[in-house]
Amino acid sequence: MVAKTSASYSITMRVEIQNRIGMLGRVTSAIGKAGGDIGAVDIAGFGKGTVIRDITVDARDEAHEKLIAAAVEKLPGVRVVNVSDRTFLAHLGGKITVQSKSRIKTRNDLSMVYTPGVARVCMAIHANPSKAHQLTIKKNTVAVITDGSAVLGLGNIGPAAAMPVMEGKAALFKEFAGVDAFPICLDTQDPDEIVRTAKFIAPGFGGINLEDISAPRCFDIEERLQKEVDIPVFHDDQHGTAVVVLAALLNALRIVKKSLRDLKIVVSGVGASGVACTKILMAMGARTIIGLDTKGALYRGRTENMNPMKEWFAQATNPQGLKGDVLDVIKGADMYLGLSGPGTFPVKALKKMARDPIVFAMANPIPEILPEEAAAHVRVMATGRSDYPNQINNVLCFPGFFRGLLDARASHVTPAMKIAAAKAIASLVSPRELSEEYITPSVFDARVAPAVAAAVAKSAYQTGAARRARKSVGSYRLT
Amino acid sequence: MVAKTSASYSITMRVEIQNRIGMLGRVTSAIGKAGGDIGAVDIAGFGKGTVIRDITVDARDEAHEKLIAAAVEKLPGVRVVNVSDRTFLAHLGGKITVQSKSRIKTRNDLSMVYTPGVARVCMAIHANPSKAHQLTIKKNTVAVITDGSAVLGLGNIGPAAAMPVMEGKAALFKEFAGVDAFPICLDTQDPDEIVRTAKFIAPGFGGINLEDISAPRCFDIEERLQKEVDIPVFHDDQHGTAVVVLAALLNALRIVKKSLRDLKIVVSGVGASGVACTKILMAMGARTIIGLDTKGALYRGRTENMNPMKEWFAQATNPQGLKGDVLDVIKGADMYLGLSGPGTFPVKALKKMARDPIVFAMANPIPEILPEEAAAHVRVMATGRSDYPNQINNVLCFPGFFRGLLDARASHVTPAMKIAAAKAIASLVSPRELSEEYITPSVFDARVAPAVAAAVAKSAYQTGAARRARKSVGSYRLT
Repeated sequence: MVAKTSASYSITMRVEIQNRIGMLGRVTSAIGKAGGDIGAVDIAGFGKGTVIRDITVDARDEAHEKLIAAAVEKLPGVRVVNVSDRTFLAHLGGKITVQSKSRIKTRNDLSMVYTPGVARVCMAIHANPSKAHQLTIKKNTVAVITDGSAVLGLGNIGPAAAMPVMEGKAALFKEFAGVDAFPICLDTQDPDEIVRTAKFIAPGFGGINLEDISAPRCFDIEERLQKEVDIPVFHDDQHGTAVVVLAALLNALRIVKKSLRDLKIVVSGVGASGVACTKILMAMGARTIIGLDTKGALYRGRTENMNPMKEWFAQATNPQGLKGDVLDVIKGADMYLGLSGPGTFPVKALKKMARDPIVFAMANPIPEILPEEAAAHVRVMATGRSDYPNQINNVLCFPGFFRGLLDARASHVTPAMKIAAAKAIASLVSPRELSEEYITPSVFDARVAPAVAAAVAKSAYQTGAARRARKSVGSYRLT
Repeated sequence: MVAKTSASYSITMRVEIQNRIGMLGRVTSAIGKAGGDIGAVDIAGFGKGTVIRDITVDARDEAHEKLIAAAVEKLPGVRVVNVSDRTFLAHLGGKITVQSKSRIKTRNDLSMVYTPGVARVCMAIHANPSKAHQLTIKKNTVAVITDGSAVLGLGNIGPAAAMPVMEGKAALFKEFAGVDAFPICLDTQDPDEIVRTAKFIAPGFGGINLEDISAPRCFDIEERLQKEVDIPVFHDDQHGTAVVVLAALLNALRIVKKSLRDLKIVVSGVGASGVACTKILMAMGARTIIGLDTKGALYRGRTENMNPMKEWFAQATNPQGLKGDVLDVIKGADMYLGLSGPGTFPVKALKKMARDPIVFAMANPIPEILPEEAAAHVRVMATGRSDYPNQINNVLCFPGFFRGLLDARASHVTPAMKIAAAKAIASLVSPRELSEEYITPSVFDARVAPAVAAAVAKSAYQTGAARRARKSVGSYRLT
């Protein structure tokens, strides 16, 4: 398969073209012949008998970007002045900014937001610490914390290189749910230090989103941190994925008319997301789950390549004690959930599944099996990609999830909240809309975040995790 | 002295007034009689035969706010519906917000600022970590870190109660110098943990502003942290104050026509700011400084109430080994620098100073000596307050200082930078403007931050602390 061109590999080429009829046509033809997908063409200025144009072109990858530029450069009467990669341009100086909510233009402004006025606000919080939730940014602010140990599919690239992902996440928090989020990239990968650092910086935040921390360390870190702080801790790679997978599966089950209780599910990949998905599916009633790692099925008594989470997996799942690789355990399975690596689910395995197979192949950017390969044999197929139907994207969950946590001033995350969020997402696909190619709402569906937030907040009140009086304080009264 | 009314104690009273001629006059008279200073009077609505008005009133303090409200409440035909303290209103939900620099409205947007496009930016930083300064918010972002151990003059009120000050600081950073700053309030007061936590969170920041950390811990924390990180660390309570004091003193010396070398200076208060001011004054040539704490002068051999910084002070200053209290050591002094507590510098001490005394009484809100008490005996007087001439306010320094550090991509702070910043501030008062009542520019003088930034950046290049090529990169080139 030839990869598609993508905005994530788009360039803006500044070209100086001799001002003769037909010249722009030659340039655009050369770009098209090289496989580039032309977007905007703007005039940037004029030279001596030349026109300077900015041409935006989507390419397939970086090599393709260079190939396109070279094809244009070769044309007589054309000079490539500059080639800017638009993704890099979008990152110059970072993607988020901190703003003051009010202008500080006069001494009166200064005396209210800073000294001396601020001292009274400090003392009001000192006297009653819960007022920090009203009188500071804690009310609406989430720390996005990573150690850079498992960033996207890129592996252990460290804290500095992880920043663009965390900034992107902060941008999404704001754009999708009005949550103020700030990236904290840690220069340590020691679980004790991570827990301690997150605990120490917690006072200014209303919640902690752990991100891209490798398994199995992430389980322990999340659990220990939640015990140390009185604000909710949510490891998105685990729970965000689990919530959205459950949402998509609930809708897929409506199509194939099967029950989660009776489903045989093979989970390939027992890292952070594999474990969290398994837990949420079991909480919803699934009884037959078989986990796979690179050594094959996890079963009671396996000794090779184990860790505490895999031990849990071996004990809690695979009731029949199946052994072997994916070809062995997939037989008769109703669902394949891939959270592993590219191309690891062969068509011949898919063919062994039960009627109406459900395949979620979430490895990114290259799934465990490509939708075009699976098409003939699968009933419902989902991936993590935006260029196929049924994208399972955490963006459907985390912004609204934290919106709900903050709105309820939740002290911790409960399993019930995650299930409530999944049901809320699933419910946005109406029976009339539901089809094999539409089991999840679009990430740009503006109803998603409010629905998730409402479900999470409601659950927080039901489970006693909420600490905010239901009638919110409208204005601060003089006491 | 009766305190003045202030915007930091202003209220907006919503009052329902019977709609008869002369009623508003009675309300405003009652407020005036109670000593309230009326600002805006707005109509908020109408009731049955009543007008509902919002009246903004500056008061002297909280008790005065209540007294004013009570005076209005007593009037027949008038009902106080609500009294909102405007300073608290300005703090509802906190004072800063995190924004995405670009909107995320389409799949193309998402694919550039988040997955999959972001992965390439991460890998570019992974390959060349210095690119974090171009491609992330590190370029323009400062952590404002406190442990809440010495917040303003309020003492050890802890991290949650310190948040309003740190948020205010972040707001000032943005408003005065375009610096993105984020508050980090630490739930630990252990110096080792503070250093470690700040070090661990450093990768995402271009600088660290330590704030409101008590002496003598602050000296050690700052020094150790600067050794651990490759970004500048600046404890504002020390160096911000020192820079602005030096700036003001340089101009005061132009008035009294004395030289720093020959000045006898008494420094009352040897905490963070007292030590830092002493160091910068000595670096600029001062030879005769005597420090005072609550036990009197610091001299070689003193054993009572010492700590390592006071030990340094006793060794490095007071060449004549003067002993005793302020009345003993002030005799013949040219300058009194108060960084201690309210009312601690009596007039009879002031009277013992040399000709043309310079008095900086910086205790806030109540200075060591009030300007009206000192007036008859002093030549140049400055305080930390905005309602007297010559306000010595750190806002003159820190926004521009960090602007310069970030612009030069400085790795650390040097003594030369601080002196350069002080000279830049002082230079903004022209010879024509200079007078006993005008030795520092206004905090709202828009020239201040750029001048400080330029001086700091220039000094960073001169001292080798700068890491940014002088010709800044205009756009990211496809490599």
